[in-house]
Amino acid sequence: MLPITREILDIVDRALEEDLAFHDPTTACLVPPDQQGRAVVLAKAPGVLAGASVAGAVFSRMDPALTAQAVKQDGERLRPGDHILHIEGPASGILRAERTALNLIQRMSGIATLTSLYVKAVEGYPAHIVDTRKTAPGLRYLDKYAVRMGGGRNHRLNLADGILVKDNHIAALQARGVSLRETVERAVKLAPHTLKVEVEVETVEQAREALEGGAHILLLDNMNVEDMAEAVALAKGRAMTEASGGITLETVRAVAQTGVDIISVGALTHSVAALDISLDFQP
Amino acid sequence: MLPITREILDIVDRALEEDLAFHDPTTACLVPPDQQGRAVVLAKAPGVLAGASVAGAVFSRMDPALTAQAVKQDGERLRPGDHILHIEGPASGILRAERTALNLIQRMSGIATLTSLYVKAVEGYPAHIVDTRKTAPGLRYLDKYAVRMGGGRNHRLNLADGILVKDNHIAALQARGVSLRETVERAVKLAPHTLKVEVEVETVEQAREALEGGAHILLLDNMNVEDMAEAVALAKGRAMTEASGGITLETVRAVAQTGVDIISVGALTHSVAALDISLDFQP
Amino acid sequence: MLPITREILDIVDRALEEDLAFHDPTTACLVPPDQQGRAVVLAKAPGVLAGASVAGAVFSRMDPALTAQAVKQDGERLRPGDHILHIEGPASGILRAERTALNLIQRMSGIATLTSLYVKAVEGYPAHIVDTRKTAPGLRYLDKYAVRMGGGRNHRLNLADGILVKDNHIAALQARGVSLRETVERAVKLAPHTLKVEVEVETVEQAREALEGGAHILLLDNMNVEDMAEAVALAKGRAMTEASGGITLETVRAVAQTGVDIISVGALTHSVAALDISLDFQP
Amino acid sequence: MLPITREILDIVDRALEEDLAFHDPTTACLVPPDQQGRAVVLAKAPGVLAGASVAGAVFSRMDPALTAQAVKQDGERLRPGDHILHIEGPASGILRAERTALNLIQRMSGIATLTSLYVKAVEGYPAHIVDTRKTAPGLRYLDKYAVRMGGGRNHRLNLADGILVKDNHIAALQARGVSLRETVERAVKLAPHTLKVEVEVETVEQAREALEGGAHILLLDNMNVEDMAEAVALAKGRAMTEASGGITLETVRAVAQTGVDIISVGALTHSVAALDISLDFQP
Amino acid sequence: MLPITREILDIVDRALEEDLAFHDPTTACLVPPDQQGRAVVLAKAPGVLAGASVAGAVFSRMDPALTAQAVKQDGERLRPGDHILHIEGPASGILRAERTALNLIQRMSGIATLTSLYVKAVEGYPAHIVDTRKTAPGLRYLDKYAVRMGGGRNHRLNLADGILVKDNHIAALQARGVSLRETVERAVKLAPHTLKVEVEVETVEQAREALEGGAHILLLDNMNVEDMAEAVALAKGRAMTEASGGITLETVRAVAQTGVDIISVGALTHSVAALDISLDFQP
Amino acid sequence: MLPITREILDIVDRALEEDLAFHDPTTACLVPPDQQGRAVVLAKAPGVLAGASVAGAVFSRMDPALTAQAVKQDGERLRPGDHILHIEGPASGILRAERTALNLIQRMSGIATLTSLYVKAVEGYPAHIVDTRKTAPGLRYLDKYAVRMGGGRNHRLNLADGILVKDNHIAALQARGVSLRETVERAVKLAPHTLKVEVEVETVEQAREALEGGAHILLLDNMNVEDMAEAVALAKGRAMTEASGGITLETVRAVAQTGVDIISVGALTHSVAALDISLDFQP
Repeated sequence: MLPITREILDIVDRALEEDLAFHDPTTACLVPPDQQGRAVVLAKAPGVLAGASVAGAVFSRMDPALTAQAVKQDGERLRPGDHILHIEGPASGILRAERTALNLIQRMSGIATLTSLYVKAVEGYPAHIVDTRKTAPGLRYLDKYAVRMGGGRNHRLNLADGILVKDNHIAALQARGVSLRETVERAVKLAPHTLKVEVEVETVEQAREALEGGAHILLLDNMNVEDMAEAVALAKGRAMTEASGGITLETVRAVAQTGVDIISVGALTHSVAALDISLDFQP
Repeated sequence: MLPITREILDIVDRALEEDLAFHDPTTACLVPPDQQGRAVVLAKAPGVLAGASVAGAVFSRMDPALTAQAVKQDGERLRPGDHILHIEGPASGILRAERTALNLIQRMSGIATLTSLYVKAVEGYPAHIVDTRKTAPGLRYLDKYAVRMGGGRNHRLNLADGILVKDNHIAALQARGVSLRETVERAVKLAPHTLKVEVEVETVEQAREALEGGAHILLLDNMNVEDMAEAVALAKGRAMTEASGGITLETVRAVAQTGVDIISVGALTHSVAALDISLDFQP
Repeated sequence: MLPITREILDIVDRALEEDLAFHDPTTACLVPPDQQGRAVVLAKAPGVLAGASVAGAVFSRMDPALTAQAVKQDGERLRPGDHILHIEGPASGILRAERTALNLIQRMSGIATLTSLYVKAVEGYPAHIVDTRKTAPGLRYLDKYAVRMGGGRNHRLNLADGILVKDNHIAALQARGVSLRETVERAVKLAPHTLKVEVEVETVEQAREALEGGAHILLLDNMNVEDMAEAVALAKGRAMTEASGGITLETVRAVAQTGVDIISVGALTHSVAALDISLDFQP
Repeated sequence: MLPITREILDIVDRALEEDLAFHDPTTACLVPPDQQGRAVVLAKAPGVLAGASVAGAVFSRMDPALTAQAVKQDGERLRPGDHILHIEGPASGILRAERTALNLIQRMSGIATLTSLYVKAVEGYPAHIVDTRKTAPGLRYLDKYAVRMGGGRNHRLNLADGILVKDNHIAALQARGVSLRETVERAVKLAPHTLKVEVEVETVEQAREALEGGAHILLLDNMNVEDMAEAVALAKGRAMTEASGGITLETVRAVAQTGVDIISVGALTHSVAALDISLDFQP
Repeated sequence: MLPITREILDIVDRALEEDLAFHDPTTACLVPPDQQGRAVVLAKAPGVLAGASVAGAVFSRMDPALTAQAVKQDGERLRPGDHILHIEGPASGILRAERTALNLIQRMSGIATLTSLYVKAVEGYPAHIVDTRKTAPGLRYLDKYAVRMGGGRNHRLNLADGILVKDNHIAALQARGVSLRETVERAVKLAPHTLKVEVEVETVEQAREALEGGAHILLLDNMNVEDMAEAVALAKGRAMTEASGGITLETVRAVAQTGVDIISVGALTHSVAALDISLDFQP
Repeated sequence: MLPITREILDIVDRALEEDLAFHDPTTACLVPPDQQGRAVVLAKAPGVLAGASVAGAVFSRMDPALTAQAVKQDGERLRPGDHILHIEGPASGILRAERTALNLIQRMSGIATLTSLYVKAVEGYPAHIVDTRKTAPGLRYLDKYAVRMGGGRNHRLNLADGILVKDNHIAALQARGVSLRETVERAVKLAPHTLKVEVEVETVEQAREALEGGAHILLLDNMNVEDMAEAVALAKGRAMTEASGGITLETVRAVAQTGVDIISVGALTHSVAALDISLDFQP
């Protein structure tokens, strides 16, 4: 379960404020402050759970008198009807926090569920499914955690924890007369010594040049599987390989067959379908 | 175009910090601080644009020496290849801000595009397509703006700007022996006088009861179209009607045919597919 | 009692910081850190209490070892000498937090007390006394809560939770050739569907025009009571009516006699006299 | 005029956010984004101006395209009808920022006006009128600035910029067997060397004891004017004297006649009547 | 021990975030979340302790399941090997928080240790060793607290809690034809009445002039000890004296011999050597 | 020169607020708001400059009417008397911002100067001097930038941008029966693929084991130079080597002679002596 650090609380508090959740006139009109209640957060569709502790934190930030008991753990599979959280305490708080809590757990579980499909699709191959930095602004830590809960791994958390020489970097240096190989050599020489140098290539020829420059990882971008397999063979023993670019659930297994070490999928976090999870109030 | 207020800047700044965009070692190793460059943000898929000024703000927050010129306006249709923004200034800043800018404009345009499909699907009927509060935590203002750019309208911005008596409120009062009708009457009596009272109902019978209680708006939740049409007829001249619950692009036209005034679609913001937009660096 | 949410804590923390309350050299010079003490917060003048839990929170934010026990509840009447809070714990903390706690409870009780006078003045008439958005910047939630404790109701919490077409809006549209009636029609048509449309009018003629445009509420601004009564009669069964503008304790009853539904009084929050409440230290 | 520092901008921004001023549906429905306008902020009652630059900053924070031109300077007298600020730019921004700007300038000018009455009341005597720490939480800098604009001076900005041994400190030490004189000696010895030691006394006897202890300033609390005069005589050449406690416009001149150096008046900031200032939109 | 107020927590939280301490991949790879552990924070060099409660707070902010037990109190002498804190709880949290906790306690203890050397060097003389405002930006409260733990006292906490007429102020007024004496008189007359007026002088002649102007404190800047002694004699009974400017451990005793009341040493906080303190993990 | 990003502005603003720089009574008493002035920031001791743009930003944040012109660039050598910045504008702003600006530039230049001495000491050897995470809490970005200006390089910016298996990690795993070699293997297998795995070793034997486990970098901690040379020889062609632990200006050249690739020096940032830089006001 995700520890509820200050970072997570900031996200929760901002979300509650954005919703003016403490100033809900509907609940204020109808529900007496002393009415107690219980609620269950439950799955309405199959999937993989992520965000149970985050959703729980929404309730306790709304009202410290609310308690949230996790019935399922993040990373567990959900079937329709499965109970996820039991909430107990002032009814007004449950009603005010409901939407914010669901928004978080539905997105996170949506990411975990989609990730788990990609992971399952490459079963039997060594390739790891990883995310990208294509996350919802402000929610990166949650998005990346959800990927892990779905069985995936994380690529760079931010720009600072990896060197990734992308097409636009290469173009910027080419404009100054620096070849791809020289660009890679420069990165290897000047990069912080704790970081590997990953290089985006689009052709086998570029892969070769990047390897000569000393690249530690090749990012094979939008290659067809034949070229990819050739690049993987070329890199064997010299560099890791990562496949990227428009990979779908339909194509991911073929990509894994090329022997790449890593497959990165932007859609895991940039095109999320919320998992259907709801809250049933039990007065 | 969305004015870049402090609220928007906070989202932009948090996103840049989350990415440690000012501490990008790849660019630091490779691109001299004095190298200038240009870039074009362009569509790779058809859709509706939203977020051009927000994306532009990412570049100028990264480096005030960067200028972003909008070629397309929010709300305009995009065809693959269409230029959206022209960026000019220090190459390093363009490369550092790229991902954050794209994350924002891709999500926003994804929302606008999806919304426009729903709007088109109900063409000829009076129903307005509106969003819900099922937005990405921290991004509600952007999500709701994008819905407007797609031709939709906004439902409640937050809990405070409308009374919406939902199933869980009704359950909470029933547990205290208060009928639906009495619940609605109480809301009408106690609500802030500037707000209408909307009531969620699931059957024609409930619709009737809510109308008797004085509801200004009926939220017809998960009804089949026959019941919905009956509820709409019942409400005619007495209350507005809103359809909600699991409405898809396939079903929305049939829903509109019932004569409802408003159709709210959670998926517009909770299940967003990023629109494919990219940045081409032109050194 | 007001729940102490993050919003309230932010106000409390900012107030303590503004006072550099953790860096009080007087107390540091004189009071040993281990000295314990008790104090009572008590009324020195008659009035209505508001802010007891907020004042209590000041002490516990200053030092978690301080406990505050409420003897009176918000909304209760106070007579001189009445105990409100009992504080117990480190003497130094009590002395450092005293001023900040009193500043909050004195203002809030001042608002509640003034409101209660207006409410009493209209006793027997159906009119509700409501506040306005003329609150102390940064303290709106506290100001509006205090109004409720005094027996009043709240008008708009912010610009987003009600449509109020004011004189300046009408002027802006008139400059473009749009009549009052057309302006109101436009607002009714374009406003978020959960919000009523209130229109500020200064004459019976304008009231008539606004009603024709479909206004849900008439704000009768600075009208004499004869005109007001006529406008109320006109609106009967078609729209609510709200009286506003320079209403004082002397005139409010006459205003209520016109039959208006609502009387809004800016002075409740923009011209507050602190209620005399003090802290007695009991070593 | 008050410089618009980050502290001031924080107050302004918080006030605009509290009002959800960027999300004003009334203006959004009615006023086209490209409509330009002008407005004048003008006095409706006589008084002393404070807060013109702060009010101006509200408009430019709302929309950088808005310009505010000060016609009157802070500290100047106002007669009904006097123009204070001329605003120019997008009409929508003027309408959205109006209330927030007025809330600030009305409170500040109310403080300046009240202060000026006290200052005038003691004309001819050497006594300075000063404020207290009884300010609206979060607005201390503005409140204290307004006092200066009204011709007053400031007492402590916060707890850290002066030693003030109050009744509760004295009580805390007495409980440990320390006499008033010893308490004062201790403060003089241990206080930061840049701070004077002020001691609150309620009788002539206490005044004598505080002087013997080495007090630099006597705070004569709630004394009648005879005792006050005696204490002032006693302190002459040895310490400054400050009168405090329930001083009103009716009694302040008699207090000044005792020869005290300073008269502090809590009401200047804790019981403020907003000065009537309004905004006239001129499309 | 320093109470852990919101101000201190802000410093702690910012430091943990700056280190991305919640996203430590080394610990994530190696240490299972359920592994418990203990650790001891211990001295590796002799010195004076400061910051034990602050370091403890780092662990509990990292993970509320971590407890920190102080074995030594701030202000106590440390010998190599002395235990300072015992930490207990999840091993992962200990490892993630280690560096941040040590950064704080090492700096603070370094300041306390250096201060104690200056204090010891002037033993037998009445002079107090005080700090300056030359602190690490953002850490002033911690720096000044550490000085107190080393036996020193604090000079101004900020610009607002003392009048200090420095060389540059004097130069600014001289440029307008105002003499040093007149400058001092003006400060005495216009300063907030709770603050003393301290004047920086570099010669005996200036000291005389400042005294004539009514200075309460003379800051003897960069004077040789003969001049200093003469200035001290001159000020006797009229003003306090403070020595400042390039005073080192070698020269401080000679300075104290002149009879000055206060010796301020910028190096206490602007040139800090971290005290060697480390954390031993005990699985 | 360091770009002045929002991160840097936050540090500047916090420092100005901590100093209550906008509420400086000394300047308020003495310097008329309309007095203009100039000042020069200049070196009083030899060293290497860092922080010129940061110091400049302090002045413009204090008052936008102040301009700061850099005469020297960060990274340049300073001789006593060298001009660094020319400031121009309102005299009051210069005087209020002086201390905060100097605190920043003195610390940063102190770091750059010390770093340059280490860099010079290893001249002729391939070893790079790098910093550690032992920075002043809240100032890491400035501290690490200053190291670069002194000719050094940066080690990890935060815990997330490198795997560093330290003694305490090894101890934690040994307690579970995992050998050093297995620990390293586990890190290599599980670490984010963009990060190298660095392992802290204290003996040649441990170095061997870490290499067998697949370590990419060896951190040779507190080794004598003979062992270090042996470990370097062992690692040649298989892993980079970094020397660390108690390295001083006296010993660093001998360490470099062992052939290590990197020498990390905590003292660069944890034991900083401010470089003597002052501000001369020129009215």
